[in-house]
Amino acid sequence: MISVNQGGDGVRDFKNNPDLIIKGGMIVTMVEGQDTIPEGNVFVTDGWITDIRGESEIDHIQGSHTEIINAKDAIIMPGLINGHTHAAMTLFRGLADDLPLKQWLFEKIFPAEAKFLNTDTVYWGSLLGCLEMIASGTTCFIDGYFFQDETVRAAHDSGLRALIAQGVIDFPAPGVEDPEKNLMVAKEFIERWFGFSDLIMPGIFCHSPLTCSEQTLKDAWEISQQFDLPLQIHLSETSDEVNEILKKTGKRPVHYLEELGLINDGLIAAHAVHLDDREIECLKENGVKVVHAPESNMKLCSGVARVLDMVKLGMPIGLGTDGCSSNNNLDLFQEMDTAAKLSKVFSLDPVALDAETVLRMATTWGASVLGLEDQIGTLEVGKKADIIVVDLQGPNLCPVYDPMSALVYSASGADVKDVIVDGKVLMKDREFTTLDPNEIMERVRRISSDICI
Amino acid sequence: MISVNQGGDGVRDFKNNPDLIIKGGMIVTMVEGQDTIPEGNVFVTDGWITDIRGESEIDHIQGSHTEIINAKDAIIMPGLINGHTHAAMTLFRGLADDLPLKQWLFEKIFPAEAKFLNTDTVYWGSLLGCLEMIASGTTCFIDGYFFQDETVRAAHDSGLRALIAQGVIDFPAPGVEDPEKNLMVAKEFIERWFGFSDLIMPGIFCHSPLTCSEQTLKDAWEISQQFDLPLQIHLSETSDEVNEILKKTGKRPVHYLEELGLINDGLIAAHAVHLDDREIECLKENGVKVVHAPESNMKLCSGVARVLDMVKLGMPIGLGTDGCSSNNNLDLFQEMDTAAKLSKVFSLDPVALDAETVLRMATTWGASVLGLEDQIGTLEVGKKADIIVVDLQGPNLCPVYDPMSALVYSASGADVKDVIVDGKVLMKDREFTTLDPNEIMERVRRISSDICI
Repeated sequence: MISVNQGGDGVRDFKNNPDLIIKGGMIVTMVEGQDTIPEGNVFVTDGWITDIRGESEIDHIQGSHTEIINAKDAIIMPGLINGHTHAAMTLFRGLADDLPLKQWLFEKIFPAEAKFLNTDTVYWGSLLGCLEMIASGTTCFIDGYFFQDETVRAAHDSGLRALIAQGVIDFPAPGVEDPEKNLMVAKEFIERWFGFSDLIMPGIFCHSPLTCSEQTLKDAWEISQQFDLPLQIHLSETSDEVNEILKKTGKRPVHYLEELGLINDGLIAAHAVHLDDREIECLKENGVKVVHAPESNMKLCSGVARVLDMVKLGMPIGLGTDGCSSNNNLDLFQEMDTAAKLSKVFSLDPVALDAETVLRMATTWGASVLGLEDQIGTLEVGKKADIIVVDLQGPNLCPVYDPMSALVYSASGADVKDVIVDGKVLMKDREFTTLDPNEIMERVRRISSDICI
Repeated sequence: MISVNQGGDGVRDFKNNPDLIIKGGMIVTMVEGQDTIPEGNVFVTDGWITDIRGESEIDHIQGSHTEIINAKDAIIMPGLINGHTHAAMTLFRGLADDLPLKQWLFEKIFPAEAKFLNTDTVYWGSLLGCLEMIASGTTCFIDGYFFQDETVRAAHDSGLRALIAQGVIDFPAPGVEDPEKNLMVAKEFIERWFGFSDLIMPGIFCHSPLTCSEQTLKDAWEISQQFDLPLQIHLSETSDEVNEILKKTGKRPVHYLEELGLINDGLIAAHAVHLDDREIECLKENGVKVVHAPESNMKLCSGVARVLDMVKLGMPIGLGTDGCSSNNNLDLFQEMDTAAKLSKVFSLDPVALDAETVLRMATTWGASVLGLEDQIGTLEVGKKADIIVVDLQGPNLCPVYDPMSALVYSASGADVKDVIVDGKVLMKDREFTTLDPNEIMERVRRISSDICI
């Protein structure tokens, strides 16, 4: 599985001269059935994990160019995967709160987007999103929005891994004034970025079964299939939406999409709050990827998704923060905590979504949502080096009886100290290496000073 | 209202030579109806807020001994009040998760407490709790536990304000092997600490109407009344508890306590999850103080308290984290976020518990729970200087359209940079001034290495 550019040096000695060693931490590999390694070291070369050793004495292995990340009193774990977000919506963080989804969307967010989104604002908004994700331990994100060339540029500049999809909606949209051209714009977007980088996958994001016509949904699916890329959609986020689809088509949303040919393992369905048993069964049978976004669903009163039922059926459910205007942050650690607690109190089953399960949602299952389960989501030799280090020196993380419990119930994104994506260090000891936080925040503050709705 | 020790200097010039200036921040006073001050300065002398000025130029006022806290790009606000916790339970953080309350309590926590609590462990556990509270912006807490002399000692050493109550339960308890002596121990505890410090109020904490007899409840109330101190109790945390009380007494818990004379404005009722309309009306009519602990209620599957109904009736509801073994941290910022979101999704009312309301729960209403509403909970001249400064330089707090939204939905405790209690700086630029974090965490780690159940 390891594919390495050997350059002019001939065969590289992966074991004894790695590019990077993450040294002396407690290792939570997230490999199924594997125990925590109480103290160990992770070796990285050319972007891949090349060794994981339990011994603490490794000085003789370190080469002269080996970068060292100190993970003493820290947990080394796979980077988190944000399964559903709209990174550039940091621009609208806190602009409109405490409103119902429809009013929030149609009276606040859509007008703000129409007025204030452009290549410049989306670039800086997305860059702020990337900054916040790096700061809080996310190494990969699934995005859908408009002006997505700019989100690609931001993700590329930041060094994050991402699936970035061009939004498609059958209304005039930011950057796509004529809805007749929405799929052409999306297809050109894919063509422009397909193969551009190992880290970035382009795609299409259909806004919802209500805001896209049958033909649009079918064509979007067709284009995605041509490139063998996943298609994203907001599915059954509110009960109103379900009722409207029922009224319009005589079918519940999942069956409506099934009829159109979209219910398939290439579909990523975000939210999926209002599903009946038959719909869940249909999603499972057809391998549809569901992403849970509990904080957004709570804040916008959308409802509580039946995640526990889906997990019990063996579906690998992803976890997403949604955009910053409906959450209002991109902290997946807090999202894991909320996912576990909400599921417990809603199902009245205290064992529901335990710490390990929600960690899996944000790591291995998130990788499955992307179809990248053989590349990311766990720490094991031969996988890409998407790794974070969580500092255990904060008082909120003392003591640690069970590292998974500590990560889910006690940590927040602020406890992350180092972030590595594809072997490259993006944050070291809480200092960003690829992005300038002051410049980004200053730019976004300047943009936001013009925004009012 | 300002009472100052003028010492040998004669009359002090409060306006022009303050002890402390918190300088150049956005000020959220939490005074009802008062707008945010976009940029201002808070003056503190002898523990009191002596001036709040909007002008940014204040250098000429600063005396030679004036300490300065820089609040540029930060929010200055009242310190948060944790309305319900058991600080020393940091010792058991993450020891037993994903279990039902009864099993968690009777099979895990009670045995662990019986085996591992003593004066030494409670001191260090409480001190870790104080450290974590300071780190995350809490300036005052309401505590109930055992070996509470040690929690008093920890709170005193840390500089926090607190109501610290000795636990009373009609079973053999940590430090009180003979339950017959529980009230004697509690009374002696109060006598020992009553008047000891302006910052610390002692009290009694009855574990619950189920685990304390009628006589115990009545006597605990009587003792509390003698000292004019509030009495704490866990009220109707689970539906099982309500059913057992109904079975035992023929009454729902609130009416049972009413019969015993406890339903009164001196009672602090934590959790109060399972209440019917008549019980809520009864609590309101009699001025009982209710404290909401949503994360604990979610994690232990206790249910969702009817906070919104109580707030609509005008009850000043406090907010608490509960102990670290049922949350598992003491971060009131995260608790505010969860309180708002849980209330929305549970009531399906997106306007429910908006940002300002939950901020009020953690500040002004928390002060009312303690009967200290004329001393703490807002920033205004003549109140005690319990103040925190929240750094807006993290990417999660950019941009800020509405400071209350930013504080509730985007911030976490990790964004707090300075903490002042009674005019004394306990944390400055994230450095603790009264506590040694390394020593405390090392001690607790050592204690925890012996703990297993």
